[in-house]
Amino acid sequence: MEKRIPVVVINELSETGRILSALEKSGIHTAEITFRTACAAEAIRYACANFPDMEIGAGTVINAGQCEAALNAGARFIVSPGLSVEVAEICRGRGIPYYPGCVTPTEIMQALELGITTVKFFPAGVYGGLKALKALSGPFPQVKFIPTGGIDSSNLEEYLAFDKVAAVGGSFFVKDALAAAEAENA
Amino acid sequence: MEKRIPVVVINELSETGRILSALEKSGIHTAEITFRTACAAEAIRYACANFPDMEIGAGTVINAGQCEAALNAGARFIVSPGLSVEVAEICRGRGIPYYPGCVTPTEIMQALELGITTVKFFPAGVYGGLKALKALSGPFPQVKFIPTGGIDSSNLEEYLAFDKVAAVGGSFFVKDALAAAEAENA
Amino acid sequence: MEKRIPVVVINELSETGRILSALEKSGIHTAEITFRTACAAEAIRYACANFPDMEIGAGTVINAGQCEAALNAGARFIVSPGLSVEVAEICRGRGIPYYPGCVTPTEIMQALELGITTVKFFPAGVYGGLKALKALSGPFPQVKFIPTGGIDSSNLEEYLAFDKVAAVGGSFFVKDALAAAEAENA
Repeated sequence: MEKRIPVVVINELSETGRILSALEKSGIHTAEITFRTACAAEAIRYACANFPDMEIGAGTVINAGQCEAALNAGARFIVSPGLSVEVAEICRGRGIPYYPGCVTPTEIMQALELGITTVKFFPAGVYGGLKALKALSGPFPQVKFIPTGGIDSSNLEEYLAFDKVAAVGGSFFVKDALAAAEAENA
Repeated sequence: MEKRIPVVVINELSETGRILSALEKSGIHTAEITFRTACAAEAIRYACANFPDMEIGAGTVINAGQCEAALNAGARFIVSPGLSVEVAEICRGRGIPYYPGCVTPTEIMQALELGITTVKFFPAGVYGGLKALKALSGPFPQVKFIPTGGIDSSNLEEYLAFDKVAAVGGSFFVKDALAAAEAENA
Repeated sequence: MEKRIPVVVINELSETGRILSALEKSGIHTAEITFRTACAAEAIRYACANFPDMEIGAGTVINAGQCEAALNAGARFIVSPGLSVEVAEICRGRGIPYYPGCVTPTEIMQALELGITTVKFFPAGVYGGLKALKALSGPFPQVKFIPTGGIDSSNLEEYLAFDKVAAVGGSFFVKDALAAAEAENA
């Protein structure tokens, strides 16, 4: 898994190419395209067809319907803000990695029961940040985290330095990549 | 929904009239009477009979039995500190609004699966306050919150200014209304 | 229940006697031996046989298999970082106290539905500490807490002074007892 997972919100399908190109140019080869917008499935399909070297996944998947739509569009991994047992089961059946958001020990135990050992931790900045991840790693040494929310380039390295952090998620990767692309074209 | 939801704890049935009158005089026409005391159902019945212009609901409903008792007494909405699937199903069957407490993304997703889009956020002051609500609104733009706990007249307006806040709950509304009524009678 | 519950991590079975002796000498007669290490069940069996005056329980029990192993080894109480319904049901069937970790109101309501009124609160220091326990005690006056994580001798008394705190858990009890034993032997 790449260490940086940009959370990509596509408002217009036509933006997809520009955003993914900027990410690729900044050395990021993963994109979590979120189901917060109506064109998410279409954007995933477009991305998979046009960016074959990128790992395209779906984010903000909150129910079985969105999960099916994401997988049919070609998503290679699924991310949820919380844990959905239904989504977990669909992903397991298809052999697709699922990263559910787990904040409490109870939620982490539910993920483990479903065979999941890498979980999203969201909103990381509000729910204790790195201090929370270190505390949770005590009873759960087998779990890896993808903290998301409240992280940016100022504290990214601090998170990545903790060996239980599988990757960091965030929309700031997109913002930074677009700013870099613009600066280059200016 | 009114923007201010007073959390009313009735220790003696005979206090009900005085408390609800004070709320009405302070311009609040909603009361969440909590099942923290033995006389809760009776107090709801009394309130519904004697304060027909007020929206009387039940709070701290933590199981199906309390929910049935509250609805039989006339409660027009149900609030829980957390999410109970059983209570949600009873309320849905009777067409009564249910506001369960949801703190984590997983809990919010469970509420959405049950058809609920307005959730309580408790204890708000401890679990990140307005910063948490703003972070949670990212992946859940369809959700409205009723933050409760750690809010008082000093920060009420700040919470109400955020458009995802449907209402604010708190016992401070009762305290303030009783103090105002006493000052007037002094 | 004793007010101090040491969280004991046994890396080598041969350490068990030394650690439990140190605890006993420091006046602690309870030990929560955690399933974070492979020798946990053996260590529990050894402890039950050799420290008959101590209350030996199992900690970090995250699934039914570990619970069965712990009970078969003689554990007299079970602690989990979160809430497992399966573990709760095994313990209820055997009449063994189960202290699941509950952080949110929803998780506390699930515990109450399972007949559990004493819950672990972990990681306490990160998820609001004493302030959180006080807020949660409002709607849940019937619940007692075992805060664990982020507590040490500097703030132990402050936690124990709150009447809803049944006990405090922590590995610092072990560290302190071992240091005291070493000082005595020096």
